[in-house]
Amino acid sequence: MSQALMVALSDIVGSANVLSEAADCAAYEEDWRGRYKGRALCVVRPANTAEVAAVVKACVAAGVAMVPQGGNTGLVGGGVPREGGGEVVISLARLNRVRAIDPVNNTVTVEAGCTLAAVQMAAAEQGRLFPLSLASEGTCQIGGNLASNAGGVQVLRYGNARELTLGLEVVLPDGEIWNGLRGLRKDNTGYDLKQLFIGSEGTLGIITAAVLKLHSPQASRALAWVALPDAQSAIALLDSLRQRLGERISAFEIVCSVAHELVLQHFPDAKRPLAEISPWYALIELSDSDASAELNVPMELVLGDAFAQGWVTDATLASSEAQAQALWMLRENISEAQKKEGLSIKHDVSVPVSRIPEFLQRAGAALSVQFPGVRIVAFGHAGDGNLHYNPSMPDVEANSDFIARTPEVNRLVHDIVAALDGSISAEHGLGQLKREEIKRYKSALEIAMMSRIKHAFDPAGLMNPGKLIG
Amino acid sequence: MSQALMVALSDIVGSANVLSEAADCAAYEEDWRGRYKGRALCVVRPANTAEVAAVVKACVAAGVAMVPQGGNTGLVGGGVPREGGGEVVISLARLNRVRAIDPVNNTVTVEAGCTLAAVQMAAAEQGRLFPLSLASEGTCQIGGNLASNAGGVQVLRYGNARELTLGLEVVLPDGEIWNGLRGLRKDNTGYDLKQLFIGSEGTLGIITAAVLKLHSPQASRALAWVALPDAQSAIALLDSLRQRLGERISAFEIVCSVAHELVLQHFPDAKRPLAEISPWYALIELSDSDASAELNVPMELVLGDAFAQGWVTDATLASSEAQAQALWMLRENISEAQKKEGLSIKHDVSVPVSRIPEFLQRAGAALSVQFPGVRIVAFGHAGDGNLHYNPSMPDVEANSDFIARTPEVNRLVHDIVAALDGSISAEHGLGQLKREEIKRYKSALEIAMMSRIKHAFDPAGLMNPGKLIG
Repeated sequence: MSQALMVALSDIVGSANVLSEAADCAAYEEDWRGRYKGRALCVVRPANTAEVAAVVKACVAAGVAMVPQGGNTGLVGGGVPREGGGEVVISLARLNRVRAIDPVNNTVTVEAGCTLAAVQMAAAEQGRLFPLSLASEGTCQIGGNLASNAGGVQVLRYGNARELTLGLEVVLPDGEIWNGLRGLRKDNTGYDLKQLFIGSEGTLGIITAAVLKLHSPQASRALAWVALPDAQSAIALLDSLRQRLGERISAFEIVCSVAHELVLQHFPDAKRPLAEISPWYALIELSDSDASAELNVPMELVLGDAFAQGWVTDATLASSEAQAQALWMLRENISEAQKKEGLSIKHDVSVPVSRIPEFLQRAGAALSVQFPGVRIVAFGHAGDGNLHYNPSMPDVEANSDFIARTPEVNRLVHDIVAALDGSISAEHGLGQLKREEIKRYKSALEIAMMSRIKHAFDPAGLMNPGKLIG
Repeated sequence: MSQALMVALSDIVGSANVLSEAADCAAYEEDWRGRYKGRALCVVRPANTAEVAAVVKACVAAGVAMVPQGGNTGLVGGGVPREGGGEVVISLARLNRVRAIDPVNNTVTVEAGCTLAAVQMAAAEQGRLFPLSLASEGTCQIGGNLASNAGGVQVLRYGNARELTLGLEVVLPDGEIWNGLRGLRKDNTGYDLKQLFIGSEGTLGIITAAVLKLHSPQASRALAWVALPDAQSAIALLDSLRQRLGERISAFEIVCSVAHELVLQHFPDAKRPLAEISPWYALIELSDSDASAELNVPMELVLGDAFAQGWVTDATLASSEAQAQALWMLRENISEAQKKEGLSIKHDVSVPVSRIPEFLQRAGAALSVQFPGVRIVAFGHAGDGNLHYNPSMPDVEANSDFIARTPEVNRLVHDIVAALDGSISAEHGLGQLKREEIKRYKSALEIAMMSRIKHAFDPAGLMNPGKLIG
């Protein structure tokens, strides 16, 4: 049976594009953080949408499940086959054409296998900006970005991947091709079907192409690193910036003292930007499409007011691109610095922006009671209400015990998130990692509504089973 | 049977809130433009979400169809009962509380029956902006705005109703209450269910409350009225503005010469803002949350460049609020002015912004060939690719023949829209008006996908039947 399927797949994509040797498949079978490893029946590499559709039809005919895969940079095991699953991995990597770009409509039409960096570059070549930006942008593919509704560092200003999408082309679980590649800002002619596929982690169909929104490039910028006495002050400062500068705030990241010191300790090139150690820091970026905007002026005005209010105790502004990069590295190297200290229990949570201080206070207090001596690395996209919250134990042996109690720690943190009307997966999705955990936090009705949709599009359950739902 | 239902409904909402006398029901049975008039079994006015749910359950038990209704300002007959339908109209008007406002999270939680103006006011009282803005904002209700994914005059900057929604509470077609009232910017925990209900015109459930995004108020503004030689120049000017000023462009409306002259003719207070008659005009509004932004400066710079390019032949900037209002009236009175000339065949279409000139050229040429002497009033939200395109005959008798040929005119205009990858309903929805017409322009697969969703949520087909789909 599976032999017959492999022959059928070879007929569609050519035998060179059906991989079944263990060595050839290995890279597609394991997620990049090495937490999920399955064994695929084979890996198929179609070249275009018609081939994707034919591959899906062949799999359906054989009753074999499929796992769509982009750049395989996901963090929740959503894009790799399951253990003993016998699934066909469908790699979208060869669908990597920029089909069209319309600078006047501010849209680009790209295939799923384009890397995010390639999409950014196609926009830049036409004097436009595609603002989605992630650490993995050189490797991750836009199809995966859309299937996981990727976030990243500029969500505050431009939204998630969802907000950047106008149209989709999707191969449905029965192999039919839905052409929803419209590049319209306004279209009220029925249910907005594309929304279903964005963020569905490949469980409702395979995104093969998309029409994406472009923006005006950022022609001027200002960047500040500020010290804050507490998280409440960070939120007050953000609010003050927003009232004054609106959409110009393109990043508002907060960093706790522990996180900052780890970066300074583990990265010899990292320099302390402010003289005194402070409980909290914020990295604030303003940007403007107007090249003549002198953004340091309003930045200094708002920071001056914040200083008078006691929200800010010290601040420095980048006066060159090199300084700006050095400040950004202080934020971007946190995960790496913590890794050098050993394992931690990572959380990717969101709460209403106004409740960030309450979350930090409650979660910190509860963890300290239950795990005395716990060290919490908290940082992230405060402007979006999204925190990365990674507790561990400084002592190696104690940490090993702590890591073993991950379910208990997750429960404690996620229960507080839920009590504050937050989300246990702000950016990364559910995949295999949080597929069970979410059942504790979503109502039975909401799970049932999701199941109804899954069943309406994939009654046989062959599209990325065991991920997100089903 | 229906008597038993009315008793059951009275038990839920009180007999004063079940209307069945013809005189009491009349206002709920006809749309405000008087094109659709049905006869309801009764009109029910629940006071809260629990009552809505109980009403739905009672209707389901009786097998009677329901029509959710907000402010009844829709333009496609989506919110009124059908002729001989025997349906229960569920008015959301009494669910009119602002449940919560969180200025720091920039969100407001409102019930469906709040008027749009009430939502705007609740935001303004906290120093925030809710930017959705429509002509009917004093009457239309936010639940209806969401169910129809309303657009309006500030979409270019802030998006449609969809982009302004973070969470929903919905009574499903079986009477279950889905609480999706989350106020999060990031939440990747499964299918984004709220997207299904936004724009679904009440066919998948009844929106009872929503969490909406707020923005920073507009603290400074600039407004220009400019003359343009052709539509192509309007698009070039828009693009130039966007590159320079990004999100500050809060309106870019175009007006053809015919439309402008009709306003000047029928509104004695209207004054010609520029000396010469021009084929096209644009009304351009810039706004900024920064009170110190002097927006006339960049406006004049961009218009100066555009003048040098030949895109603009003349321009005037409003130097007072009164002047700004006078310029806006020249845009807002177009429909009314055309009405005074008699009937016209109205179209609410969108195309990619870059293809607006091609649409105008092709549609104008085809109409002139088929209907010599036709007069076309074209205007609208060019920045969103959305045009109102209303042909008529200047001669009364000829116009009567022309109106009789509406299906033929629609076909001609909509076929060109479709050829340019546009939409035959940019803002207003499908309702009863375009429910059949859309089948010509959407693929059978897309219609089938919509049906699958409808069936998954409303298998009995009792929720607003005969609208949009089903």
